[in-house]
Amino acid sequence: MKIVHDELSIATRGQGLVEITDACADMLRRSALRSGVLTIFCRHTSCSLVIMENADPTARRDLEAWLNRLVPEAGGLFEHQAEGPDDMPSHIKMALTRTSESVPFADGRLRLGTWQGIYLWEHRRAPHTRMLAVAAIGE
Amino acid sequence: MKIVHDELSIATRGQGLVEITDACADMLRRSALRSGVLTIFCRHTSCSLVIMENADPTARRDLEAWLNRLVPEAGGLFEHQAEGPDDMPSHIKMALTRTSESVPFADGRLRLGTWQGIYLWEHRRAPHTRMLAVAAIGE
Amino acid sequence: MKIVHDELSIATRGQGLVEITDACADMLRRSALRSGVLTIFCRHTSCSLVIMENADPTARRDLEAWLNRLVPEAGGLFEHQAEGPDDMPSHIKMALTRTSESVPFADGRLRLGTWQGIYLWEHRRAPHTRMLAVAAIGE
Repeated sequence: MKIVHDELSIATRGQGLVEITDACADMLRRSALRSGVLTIFCRHTSCSLVIMENADPTARRDLEAWLNRLVPEAGGLFEHQAEGPDDMPSHIKMALTRTSESVPFADGRLRLGTWQGIYLWEHRRAPHTRMLAVAAIGE
Repeated sequence: MKIVHDELSIATRGQGLVEITDACADMLRRSALRSGVLTIFCRHTSCSLVIMENADPTARRDLEAWLNRLVPEAGGLFEHQAEGPDDMPSHIKMALTRTSESVPFADGRLRLGTWQGIYLWEHRRAPHTRMLAVAAIGE
Repeated sequence: MKIVHDELSIATRGQGLVEITDACADMLRRSALRSGVLTIFCRHTSCSLVIMENADPTARRDLEAWLNRLVPEAGGLFEHQAEGPDDMPSHIKMALTRTSESVPFADGRLRLGTWQGIYLWEHRRAPHTRMLAVAAIGE
């Protein structure tokens, strides 16, 4: 058993889901581990992780639109506005989704379901460079 | 230290919480590990995991009813409807709850609180067979 | 590779976020592990975990106020009221946030982002003593 750390740097183009499944699988390949658990950790509080259907892009668009309706950039609601009207809604959307995910792997492959993709969800309107800490524990 | 993989297959009867605490404890027993961390991973995007009170069933019914009010099967809201009106609400409910949970165990027992149960939450109306990847790392 | 278990006991003063980042870092120091993954597990169903901005307290106040608006203690909505009007809203808020978080660590330090703090989120109105199971796997 050993641990292998890595870091993913993801350039986002503003609000939306960015698939990182292949980047995670590449990291796992580089680790040379065959069997274990991969931990993915988002090092920010205005973007988050989600594991979502990766077949039909309309499912992701509907998910984003629904969350925007739930957490609107409504004027006057928030005291914390240092970085603009999308600042506080981004933190809320992050809190409602995930900061860390743990994915078992065996035979060198992540044990994702057929339709599952791993996504970084950018909640800010502007493009950002996002850092994910990734750690594989296994053998 | 070693890793033991397993898979749980859960038959759901449509929308609702299905307790899997005993199934997880059984898996841990079969692993013969005494001390470590159990990772539970849901391999689907229209059902999810949650750790919820397991004493009073009204708490689970209230939770389900509340989430159904938050994410209604409202006509016209969603573009992604390939599998019916409960398709997109299922993905949203999944994104708001959890795909993976990590539970420490010691002396061969999951370190759950007194009132905690681990649940698979089926969000689709029809019964499904759901697969969970479970991995125990420990000694 | 080895596993080190610990437990954090947190006294809350009623509803609100309590930072536990330093307590987690202390636990990691006591474990003497330098590289691995720290699992934090909340042993309750009426409080939860969240990793949130720790610089500006207004961000946390806005987050709490928003979630209180989403999940009000509205009369007549809930059947499960054994412990008062804040009972069921607490379970719902827990389900929408997190019970477990997994944080990689390297060189003896948690790989948190610059502005990230780890918080226990008390959802009940009354003060409580809350127990977190913490497990470090590493070397």
